[in-house]
Amino acid sequence: MKFLEDRIRQEGQVRPGNILKVDCFLNHQLDVALLDEIGRAFYEKYKDRGITRILTIESSGIAIACMTARYFGVPVVFAKKAKSKNLDGDVYTSVVHSFTYGRDYDITLAKKFLGPQDTVLLVDDFLAVGKAMNGMLDICGQAGARVAGIGIAIEKGFQPGGAALRKAGYDLTSLAIVDAMGDDGSITFREED
Amino acid sequence: MKFLEDRIRQEGQVRPGNILKVDCFLNHQLDVALLDEIGRAFYEKYKDRGITRILTIESSGIAIACMTARYFGVPVVFAKKAKSKNLDGDVYTSVVHSFTYGRDYDITLAKKFLGPQDTVLLVDDFLAVGKAMNGMLDICGQAGARVAGIGIAIEKGFQPGGAALRKAGYDLTSLAIVDAMGDDGSITFREED
Repeated sequence: MKFLEDRIRQEGQVRPGNILKVDCFLNHQLDVALLDEIGRAFYEKYKDRGITRILTIESSGIAIACMTARYFGVPVVFAKKAKSKNLDGDVYTSVVHSFTYGRDYDITLAKKFLGPQDTVLLVDDFLAVGKAMNGMLDICGQAGARVAGIGIAIEKGFQPGGAALRKAGYDLTSLAIVDAMGDDGSITFREED
Repeated sequence: MKFLEDRIRQEGQVRPGNILKVDCFLNHQLDVALLDEIGRAFYEKYKDRGITRILTIESSGIAIACMTARYFGVPVVFAKKAKSKNLDGDVYTSVVHSFTYGRDYDITLAKKFLGPQDTVLLVDDFLAVGKAMNGMLDICGQAGARVAGIGIAIEKGFQPGGAALRKAGYDLTSLAIVDAMGDDGSITFREED
């Protein structure tokens, strides 16, 4: 989607270690008008799929999930990264490795919020190696929920997550796919089909 | 606000240790229509205050902040709880004690997103002892930003956070104030003035 590529070109910053900082609008400061456009793009793509839940993972997926859920008129459910005292009862659990934080962590989702009756759209701000997404897919499998699609704002196309999900047959929509980032700060986006 | 009290009566669950679970609609599964009503209520209250930023803290404040920011047409900024490798540069930092998780943690906010030119509305899902809110106020103080108001969905009125903030002169709006929770699951709300 051109609107997101344009914004990344204007305000994204390339940093050593293949880091793309978009904290001005996507994951520290949040531009809600942009998030709304992202939500609308996912709705246009998946509106006829009988979606019953928007699933994401805390924290930076929550904003995109909320703006997407407004269009679908369905609830958001977000997987939690830490075990809270308040999160009792039966939960689905999966283990995720974070490259950003350099450690493994559990994600949990209360069983009452996802089951075999659900058709799920998974959304997140970034897709790179795909560890967080695989954890969410694992939870959908445990729940017996149908995965209708995956909506990503920014995919790092030079990392293997997106290719693996497409090969596995998931209907993945990445609004901007970064295929290369140069030492000079340049960003190369994948051409749309 | 009656809409939120009604929803808490219908779906909130009282648990030992003064825990009020509202994970069906506020902080694990998210009812975006309810969040939108919360955002609109904050807008009605603070729309004439020249708000330039909605400030909250990850994770469960993000959804309310986004729905509030839509009405104001201003960005959300959320304080982060963990130090990410991606969060470089100058940051404001404050220490917060979490009773839910039983530990201290740092919250950080990039300096470029908050400064003396800002007039801030702080929002969060819960206010109890007020540790997270005090951390955010500390960051506003470091930034030299003006705090125009504080919007809370659910205040635990039997804990000291709300009273302390009102005594300190903050314009605090809590949409539902729980004054007591009984062992039988009953919930007593404070009467509106």
